[in-house]
Amino acid sequence: MTTDARFELTAFWRSSATFRVRVALNLKGLTAHEHIVNLDAGEQRSEAALKLNPMGAVPALIEPGHAPITQSLAILEFLDEAQPLPPLLPADRHGRARVRAIAGMLVADTHPLVTPRIRKYLTTTGGFDDAAWRAWQIQWFGTGIAALEQRLAGEAGTGTFCHGDVPTMADICLASVVAVMRVFKISVDGTPTVDRIIAACDAHEAFAKAAPSRQVGAPA
Amino acid sequence: MTTDARFELTAFWRSSATFRVRVALNLKGLTAHEHIVNLDAGEQRSEAALKLNPMGAVPALIEPGHAPITQSLAILEFLDEAQPLPPLLPADRHGRARVRAIAGMLVADTHPLVTPRIRKYLTTTGGFDDAAWRAWQIQWFGTGIAALEQRLAGEAGTGTFCHGDVPTMADICLASVVAVMRVFKISVDGTPTVDRIIAACDAHEAFAKAAPSRQVGAPA
Repeated sequence: MTTDARFELTAFWRSSATFRVRVALNLKGLTAHEHIVNLDAGEQRSEAALKLNPMGAVPALIEPGHAPITQSLAILEFLDEAQPLPPLLPADRHGRARVRAIAGMLVADTHPLVTPRIRKYLTTTGGFDDAAWRAWQIQWFGTGIAALEQRLAGEAGTGTFCHGDVPTMADICLASVVAVMRVFKISVDGTPTVDRIIAACDAHEAFAKAAPSRQVGAPA
Repeated sequence: MTTDARFELTAFWRSSATFRVRVALNLKGLTAHEHIVNLDAGEQRSEAALKLNPMGAVPALIEPGHAPITQSLAILEFLDEAQPLPPLLPADRHGRARVRAIAGMLVADTHPLVTPRIRKYLTTTGGFDDAAWRAWQIQWFGTGIAALEQRLAGEAGTGTFCHGDVPTMADICLASVVAVMRVFKISVDGTPTVDRIIAACDAHEAFAKAAPSRQVGAPA
């Protein structure tokens, strides 16, 4: 563990994408100095925040002297290249593809559908009331987690974690989505493999330390 | 160019994610034998299709003897590892992060919002009429392309293409989103850098051959 942070990170306590980066930093024994961007207060659309991330989102990872890096998967790949041990991807090409595909099911096909900007649009322009928004959340969290359960339960690559017996990018992305589901009190039934892997993540210090409830700004 | 296809690919003429894989294969001089999954007819939810891709989507890349690979970015990374030349990512770590971040802005933050399953939900359960769906499409294509324009216009890494003067994963993802915008006759004004890069892609044979209108199943 370094004592001086090598990176700066824009962050929010509840942010699923920030969670991913926190876990990766923890796994690699790296630290980042966090700059809180309050998504509930709309700070992500301030001029300063948009300069770091034109999508109006967190996180951005900043290595002093370099441009900010946005997009959680790009940050995870960057950290894996910057400090290869312990690796976030398996060594073999087909295993790497499997891990990246699982990550994509969560980070591309699931999480973008339930972000604050989508909530804002649907509950204003879209005419959704609270119940319709909650049904939307349940629909897309549920679809993603159920599809993932089908893969994990049926594929030989699954081990203690999503791929083998050490955490990879796939587990980081899965735990990041489940962390947000917990904040919003959404659960999916009938997914024993996902549940078992999440229990393994919960028991891992690198994941536990990244829990939203343990971050600066979380409700007491 | 190989004469015998090394890969099998589930595909649909209009699919943005299939377009990405077609361009990558073309750039690398690889071929895949395509199996058409008609998204308009719901074939992606057939038992056979769900076995290849439990998200009910295309594409899946199959190398005989190995499990299908889903998720377009995972497939692009796989192809880049399987056949490194010409590379789809720059050599330096920060450049790779920039390219992957641009890819993520398009493939994670933009495209998943405008897919057939979202259209189906919003126009049935969500109560959207055709005009509301079109406004939704314009909102999210527009947000993604405008944010990308801001990055590309302001960052030193931008060249003839999104990053330097040869096509990368970033251009593949940008062109894939614009290809779908063209199918749906949606355009975004005031994005000269994006427009210039798309013109460079259009002039590149690997991109031109992947155009939706040139695929099996496209309307005459």
